[in-house]
Amino acid sequence: MRAFFDDRQSRHDPQTFLVAGILQPSPEQPERAARLKRGAEAAGCTFEAPSDHGMAPLAAVHGADYLRFLETIHTRWARLPGAGPEVVPNVHPANRSDSYPASPAGLAGYHQADTACPIGAETWGSAYWSAQTAVSAAQALARAPGEGLVYALCRPPGHHAFADLAGGFCFLNNAAIAAEVLRSEGRRVAILDVDVHHGNGTQGIFYARGDVLTVSVHADPAGFYPFYWGHAHERGEGAGRGANLNLPLARGADDAAFLKALERGLATVRAFGADVLVVALGLDAHESDPLQGMAVTTPGFTRIGAALAAAGLPMLLVQEGGYLSDALEHNLTAALEGVQGG
Amino acid sequence: MRAFFDDRQSRHDPQTFLVAGILQPSPEQPERAARLKRGAEAAGCTFEAPSDHGMAPLAAVHGADYLRFLETIHTRWARLPGAGPEVVPNVHPANRSDSYPASPAGLAGYHQADTACPIGAETWGSAYWSAQTAVSAAQALARAPGEGLVYALCRPPGHHAFADLAGGFCFLNNAAIAAEVLRSEGRRVAILDVDVHHGNGTQGIFYARGDVLTVSVHADPAGFYPFYWGHAHERGEGAGRGANLNLPLARGADDAAFLKALERGLATVRAFGADVLVVALGLDAHESDPLQGMAVTTPGFTRIGAALAAAGLPMLLVQEGGYLSDALEHNLTAALEGVQGG
Repeated sequence: MRAFFDDRQSRHDPQTFLVAGILQPSPEQPERAARLKRGAEAAGCTFEAPSDHGMAPLAAVHGADYLRFLETIHTRWARLPGAGPEVVPNVHPANRSDSYPASPAGLAGYHQADTACPIGAETWGSAYWSAQTAVSAAQALARAPGEGLVYALCRPPGHHAFADLAGGFCFLNNAAIAAEVLRSEGRRVAILDVDVHHGNGTQGIFYARGDVLTVSVHADPAGFYPFYWGHAHERGEGAGRGANLNLPLARGADDAAFLKALERGLATVRAFGADVLVVALGLDAHESDPLQGMAVTTPGFTRIGAALAAAGLPMLLVQEGGYLSDALEHNLTAALEGVQGG
Repeated sequence: MRAFFDDRQSRHDPQTFLVAGILQPSPEQPERAARLKRGAEAAGCTFEAPSDHGMAPLAAVHGADYLRFLETIHTRWARLPGAGPEVVPNVHPANRSDSYPASPAGLAGYHQADTACPIGAETWGSAYWSAQTAVSAAQALARAPGEGLVYALCRPPGHHAFADLAGGFCFLNNAAIAAEVLRSEGRRVAILDVDVHHGNGTQGIFYARGDVLTVSVHADPAGFYPFYWGHAHERGEGAGRGANLNLPLARGADDAAFLKALERGLATVRAFGADVLVVALGLDAHESDPLQGMAVTTPGFTRIGAALAAAGLPMLLVQEGGYLSDALEHNLTAALEGVQGG
């Protein structure tokens, strides 16, 4: 099974994570990439480095102001008197229609939804190569014969990034970027997100569009990040009405509950007539994940993988969350064995 | 000169102030109230305790969800495992139209725009009495004969609070609450904000209304808090079109620049036909204020006060910002001497 990863994706090393009023270490550690790589290799993946496709595939999803922000803000921030080592927002607009700001502090709050996406000196480079990994993997899938299967080890992850807003460890929406590559190759794309968190950025990017289906299985946002998105009533708007499906589950949901929701999601993918599936593959629904949202087991991930494979579609697996625990790499191995019918 | 203050306003003691990625002590210290009281007394003020007018005058400006949040969130937050002593937001919606959240973390980010308005155990009580001080002062002014003059020592301050959003040390918008009291007494109200920061909450509350004029003289938001609001092009919307005037000044503006802008603001107050003036009286434009936005002098505040008095209108002075420096109380004395013609 082909897989993509670039070592530069490991350089981003976020320190800040303000939660419940307390500064804590970020769970999105560089070590994740090494463990995920081992887990994928154990399932038979052979890694290749992505090509550099430049800014065009990123600009197909993200606004020019936002890309400029991600690329330049750390340098501007570092010149502020007394600034900390990472760009962390501390003030936010009420609405996107409020005036676009000029200063680093204003830009940070406009383009960073939360304190879980600090921008350090290496962030742009890692996010850029994470996105290039998604693009190369999507192109490899588009050119594969039959029911192709490709794994993109995207780190940092992407599904909380909107067109012009970072959040929740995410900067560039790798799954959305991959979906746009596949769409430009003439494919009808569905994105199915199995991360424990709602794929709010992905939903937002395609919310008013009917040409890409977005489905997400996740912990109920009534009590879990991202709080403002991921409810069942969010079905899309305008031309996108009906092309977004949220399947929130109670905190602590087990394999059976997860698989039941996944079957509903896959039925919607079939009804949409997708001819390719992008899976936003978070592993943080696991019972030992530090974020403690659900209780999916390691064998449960094999069953999730098998259910995805049963859709019979070419499939691009884009890595999302899943945080450091003894099970992390085994959960990826389990999921990738499942999709490969093993 | 009548003045109002309640000792319970001093109990709120914010600790958290995340700026430039660094946690710092909050400048909005309880000590401010004691110094401002001394400064007002030196200018001849006699303080009275406010009456308790209940929730109705607060609800005339703020939404029911927001008032419930302010009153109850600290108790809910304190039950979260590992929560810090203050409610500090860490994740925010992109727009007010995103789903209203259910959890304490979601509510915090929905109702707190920034990390400069932490909510501790005493915050609601202090904000409540700060608002009652504004209401009592407005009623005293409404019942005063001739060109009345009343000072409301509102602490915590209010002008960054929107109808459903705290920010920048502010929770309840005391000036807006006072304006509504005066309006309910049949007055035509103009609010003139001379704090070094744009009065974004006050602007937001009245932005679509033509019955209350809002004018603000402040440091250019291109490089100063609140960043997203306070530009000259923000003139109001709908029925409020033309009833909002922003007069941004360059950082470091001096007495002459400030007074020139103030004259423009006062001309607009006259043209509006206001019969009462609510002054949002920040003292943080002073050259020694720790926030370092402008270079107004202590005698400059006397000239500002005299210019306000020259409008010849009944005037309610509502305290906004101004932070700890040796000059703070003298700046209030100077301003109040100016408005009293001395």
